[in-house]
Amino acid sequence: MLQSTLFERKEENFMGMTMTQKILAAHAGLDFVEPGQLIEADLDLVLGNDITSPVAINEIKKFEKKDVFDGGKIALVMDHFAPNKDIKSAQNCKTCRDFADDNSIVNFFDVGRMGIEHALLPEQGLTVAGDCIIGADSHTCTYGALGAFSTGVGSTDMAVGMVTGKAWFKVPSAIKFNLKGKLNKDVCGKDVILHIIGKIGVDGALYRSMEFAGEGVSSLSMDDRFTICNMAIEAGGKNGIFPVDDITLDYIKEHSNRTPKIFVADEDAVYDEVIDIDLSALKPTVAFPHLPENTKEIGTFGDIKIDQAVIGSCTNGHISDLRSAAAQMKGKKVAKNVRCIVIPATQKIYKQAIKEGLVDIFIDAGAIVSTPTCGPCLGGYMGVLAAGERCVSTTNRNFIGRMGHVESEVYLASPAVAAASAIAGKIVGPTV
Amino acid sequence: MLQSTLFERKEENFMGMTMTQKILAAHAGLDFVEPGQLIEADLDLVLGNDITSPVAINEIKKFEKKDVFDGGKIALVMDHFAPNKDIKSAQNCKTCRDFADDNSIVNFFDVGRMGIEHALLPEQGLTVAGDCIIGADSHTCTYGALGAFSTGVGSTDMAVGMVTGKAWFKVPSAIKFNLKGKLNKDVCGKDVILHIIGKIGVDGALYRSMEFAGEGVSSLSMDDRFTICNMAIEAGGKNGIFPVDDITLDYIKEHSNRTPKIFVADEDAVYDEVIDIDLSALKPTVAFPHLPENTKEIGTFGDIKIDQAVIGSCTNGHISDLRSAAAQMKGKKVAKNVRCIVIPATQKIYKQAIKEGLVDIFIDAGAIVSTPTCGPCLGGYMGVLAAGERCVSTTNRNFIGRMGHVESEVYLASPAVAAASAIAGKIVGPTV
Repeated sequence: MLQSTLFERKEENFMGMTMTQKILAAHAGLDFVEPGQLIEADLDLVLGNDITSPVAINEIKKFEKKDVFDGGKIALVMDHFAPNKDIKSAQNCKTCRDFADDNSIVNFFDVGRMGIEHALLPEQGLTVAGDCIIGADSHTCTYGALGAFSTGVGSTDMAVGMVTGKAWFKVPSAIKFNLKGKLNKDVCGKDVILHIIGKIGVDGALYRSMEFAGEGVSSLSMDDRFTICNMAIEAGGKNGIFPVDDITLDYIKEHSNRTPKIFVADEDAVYDEVIDIDLSALKPTVAFPHLPENTKEIGTFGDIKIDQAVIGSCTNGHISDLRSAAAQMKGKKVAKNVRCIVIPATQKIYKQAIKEGLVDIFIDAGAIVSTPTCGPCLGGYMGVLAAGERCVSTTNRNFIGRMGHVESEVYLASPAVAAASAIAGKIVGPTV
Repeated sequence: MLQSTLFERKEENFMGMTMTQKILAAHAGLDFVEPGQLIEADLDLVLGNDITSPVAINEIKKFEKKDVFDGGKIALVMDHFAPNKDIKSAQNCKTCRDFADDNSIVNFFDVGRMGIEHALLPEQGLTVAGDCIIGADSHTCTYGALGAFSTGVGSTDMAVGMVTGKAWFKVPSAIKFNLKGKLNKDVCGKDVILHIIGKIGVDGALYRSMEFAGEGVSSLSMDDRFTICNMAIEAGGKNGIFPVDDITLDYIKEHSNRTPKIFVADEDAVYDEVIDIDLSALKPTVAFPHLPENTKEIGTFGDIKIDQAVIGSCTNGHISDLRSAAAQMKGKKVAKNVRCIVIPATQKIYKQAIKEGLVDIFIDAGAIVSTPTCGPCLGGYMGVLAAGERCVSTTNRNFIGRMGHVESEVYLASPAVAAASAIAGKIVGPTV
């Protein structure tokens, strides 16, 4: 096998492994792996969406072997430009639909059976602790919240993964984030990850694992952990990963009939760095244009008027996010000339939000509630910005032109901040 | 005044007037008008949307007088490509927003305060019996359901209307549709108007009023009447109009604080034609590609497999339409590889649909429920078709490429037919 020829292991070098390394070793059929080693790992799931999958599908046409390794271990999610925003996206979805039919891909999530991929797959029980997952979408790192190794790849890697069930990785080194204390009210997972990215920068974890640990973990909800791991890529991380605890296992038990495999970092695991984060010291945080690392805490900047607020996405479209936003908006009205766009991440979350009266609160406030879609996050549709417009958004990227015109601006924040800001017409902290 | 110089009226020619003619005469300050006469009429409302208004606003820049005649009598509705589907639509909405601010336009309906224009304005009480209304949207004829004269114009006419409060018209002659009997269960206003268009053709009422009359009127709900008048333009009609009865007055009383003016066609009004329609003989009707006149009754054609069903639009996005669709879908699942897109026409209808459990029924069936938008109807977004795809839709036009690729097909039908078809995967009649 390639890894043994490329990488000559010396017995005396054996060290403890991080959680990520242990998962990779197990999936490569190896006892040990270490940073820099090239391995080939078995995949538990290969993911693609309506933008990246057609590229992969076209690649497969060039392969000798054209059939997929396991129709049950591939997930195709139509979420980015679906329900179809234009003819091109309609053609893309059709390509995926036909491919799913031809290859008996069980987990083809079409319009109406859908949600946003990174909220949908855990909800559908397709991702559990111990998995090795690739997805042709950079925020595939989300599933690390469940104690899985999960990372974004390009469409060609997705193509190879779909056909062989395997992927090549360079084993990453890791940064350990030692979480202490508890978050205050109105501070959430989004503030944690924005704080971290602000601290280490958008390349602070480049090709490294971001391994979260410490007594602070137990106070973080699954939704918080999903949000934190979701944005690991925004610090350049190869993956983000949380240890598996009762909260994880309860979530998996509720959503999946698969058996999780628990990997625990070795006591003597080696980390490039250990960074202590005191959760109790964190405040609502906003990432200013045009990088997620440009963070400022609420209260440290002047008036920033907004034209739009977006509450949703794979980062913050969970039911807890909608509850948090609704708490800010209940009985209030969105400010004049501000559009507030709320997007539950999945149909299940949409239904739950209806049941809890959250959708009524949003509509009464003058917000719109969209069917699940990535839409505005990547400037797709459902809230694209004009020149000079400013949006506060619970999404994950605020690059130039990310949500529309190159002269528009995106400010990343938590659902509570985005909702409070929609009411105030400017960026403010949570008010209740 | 121009009408007196252009049109020399002879006393002996005086004849009874149609309902439309009487409204136009009153708004032109004349005792009588007759077909072909050019008049200038006072306007009660000038409407534009996010596509047509920016063109009108740009026209106004060329005028000497640049301010609007009455900020309370203009309605700008952001519904076609809003929530913004792309940068261009974002810029268009911004143009409208700025213009509304500059001109104290009270009825600026932005994202979240919105609905689809022709469902929204009656609901907001802005259109009542006796009004003279123009809108830069062809389906402005909808408000004839309330006994108003209402017609679509181009953006330049809208511009002149916004500044002067007046518009020029050539007085139309009329076709009288004498409605008899009652609709059977599962047959609705959409089937009535499709039947009529199938009978007279897409130019059958060219520049003429379509005046509905007869004892059959009283059995038609307001929603049925809105749908019927909405599609008058699809037969080429200048307008569609219903007599005012208790159903009309109850609706207006519930929605508006304005006082309706009731105009009744003269006994000796002259019609080009009188067409009898026996409502009890009508069956669920489908307009085949690529013209609304290509109608066939359910049961008279073979299997037509579909890829998408759209339930909504200014034509059929009312609460009664959603109830009708939900009745077909309750406890059932949308067929494999069919997308079913449900779009309540206004936020109020959306809320009502939630309250009645209709949204739950749609989501459980595997349909998506979108925020109010015109979206897919005109191939805007939220359900655009790929090459070779077929859609059954409750919208109003099935021209080539209307909903996406030029090689796609749209079949127009009622909400009951569209919903039943979504379940069956092919075009079928209502099943419950």
